[in-house]
Amino acid sequence: MPGGVALSKVYRVRAEIDTMLDELRPGDRVPAERELAGRFGVARETVRHALRDLAVEGRIRRQGRGTVLARPKVVRPLAPETAGEEAAGVVRRLLSWEDGVADAEVARDLDLAPQTPIMTLERLLFADGDPIALERIDLSLDRFGWLRAAFDPLSSLATTIGDSGVEYAGATERIETVLAAPREAGLLRCRPAVPLFRVVRRGIDTQGRPIERVAALYRGDRVAFEVRTGGRGR
Amino acid sequence: MPGGVALSKVYRVRAEIDTMLDELRPGDRVPAERELAGRFGVARETVRHALRDLAVEGRIRRQGRGTVLARPKVVRPLAPETAGEEAAGVVRRLLSWEDGVADAEVARDLDLAPQTPIMTLERLLFADGDPIALERIDLSLDRFGWLRAAFDPLSSLATTIGDSGVEYAGATERIETVLAAPREAGLLRCRPAVPLFRVVRRGIDTQGRPIERVAALYRGDRVAFEVRTGGRGR
Repeated sequence: MPGGVALSKVYRVRAEIDTMLDELRPGDRVPAERELAGRFGVARETVRHALRDLAVEGRIRRQGRGTVLARPKVVRPLAPETAGEEAAGVVRRLLSWEDGVADAEVARDLDLAPQTPIMTLERLLFADGDPIALERIDLSLDRFGWLRAAFDPLSSLATTIGDSGVEYAGATERIETVLAAPREAGLLRCRPAVPLFRVVRRGIDTQGRPIERVAALYRGDRVAFEVRTGGRGR
Repeated sequence: MPGGVALSKVYRVRAEIDTMLDELRPGDRVPAERELAGRFGVARETVRHALRDLAVEGRIRRQGRGTVLARPKVVRPLAPETAGEEAAGVVRRLLSWEDGVADAEVARDLDLAPQTPIMTLERLLFADGDPIALERIDLSLDRFGWLRAAFDPLSSLATTIGDSGVEYAGATERIETVLAAPREAGLLRCRPAVPLFRVVRRGIDTQGRPIERVAALYRGDRVAFEVRTGGRGR
C-alpha cells in the first residue's frame, strides 16, 4: 500500500461505507470519492483504497464513470447431484475444442497413462452478460471422441454424456484461491488483484471410473459457493 | 504493478519456476532471486514478482532469510457429517468468549429476533504451528448458556453439543473470498495481499432449528476445501 495511507483507517472507512451501502439497491449510485471523504473526514486517497477493496470483494462495481452497488453474487452449488450444472441464468460460450495428450496431472485425475490422447474444451461462463468463470474440460478421446459429432455446445455437456448411458455416481471438487494470469484476467475482464477460486472437479461413473476433469476459474468478486448436507438447511 | 515489469513476463517466469519446484520437497530451499534471474534471463524484479505470486498462492514460503517450498495445503472437507470438524492435525486456541446480542445477520442465521442475547466464541486454528483460520461462533445464550460450565475449550464444541442430546441433521456452508482486515491479518500472520476464504456455516438440528453459526476466515495460501458426493470419488 502506498505510503501515507494507514491500513486501519482504510478498513474503518471501508466498514462505514459498507454499512452505508446497506441502504442502496443494486445499480444505485455510490456517492463520489470527494463526498465520502468529506462525510467521513478522511483523505480522498483513503476513500479510494476502501472503494477498491469493496470492488475486489464484489460489493460495488464501476459503471461508466461512476460506481454502483453490485448485484448479489451468483451462488454456485458445489458437487450437486446434477454433476456440476450451474446456477440458473448462467450461459456458456465455447472458446475452443482441441485434441491433445494428458499431462501428468490430467492423466492422474482421469486414471489414464500420461500422454494418452484427450480432448480439451474451454468455455467461458456468463451471468447477466458478465464473464464469471473460465472452465477447461478434459475428457478421454478414446471414450468420448463421439461427443465431437453429438454435442451441441449450447446444451449441457453433463446431459449429453448422461444421455449416452454414462451414469454419474459422484464427484469430488477441490477449491483453492489463485491469482489471475494475464490471459485469464483478460477473458474474465477482471483486474489482476481480484482473487479467483480455482475449482477442480472430477465426475465419477457407477463403475468408479472418472468421467471428466473440469478445472474452472471463478471470479471471487462475482461468485460464492454453497454446500448443503442433510435436508433441513436453508 | 510497478512500471517496467511486464505482467506476461512475470507469469511466464512464474510458470517456469513452478515447474522447477516440482523437483523439490517441502522445506527445500528455493534458489535465490539472483540465480533465478540469471537462469531465466530476466530482471531480478521480474523474479521477485513471480515469487511473490507463488507465495500468495501458498506454493512457497519465507523461512528465515530464504524461501522454501511450502507444505501441501491443509485440506478441509466441507459440510461433513461430523458437523464442521477440522482435518487431522488442526489445533484450536480459544481467543475470547463473550456475551452479546445478535445483530441482524446473526439473528437471521440463528432464527432469533434481533438483539436476542447470544454467546460469541472466537478461536484461532493452527496447523503445523501456523495460524490457518480465525473462527467466530455464535450461539443462542438461552439455549446454549450451559456450555460455559460444560465446555472444555480444548475439546470439540460439536461433540460437546452432540453429547447433550442435540442432534446435527445437516448444515449449509457458503464460501466467498475476502481481503484480510488488519486485525485478522495480524492474528493469521499473513500479508494483506493473501486472499482469504470466508466460510459461513449453519448447523441444523433434527427439528430444523439452527444450532450454531460459524463465520470463519481461512488463509488461502494454506488451506484448500474439498467436497465429495457419492461414494466413489477419490
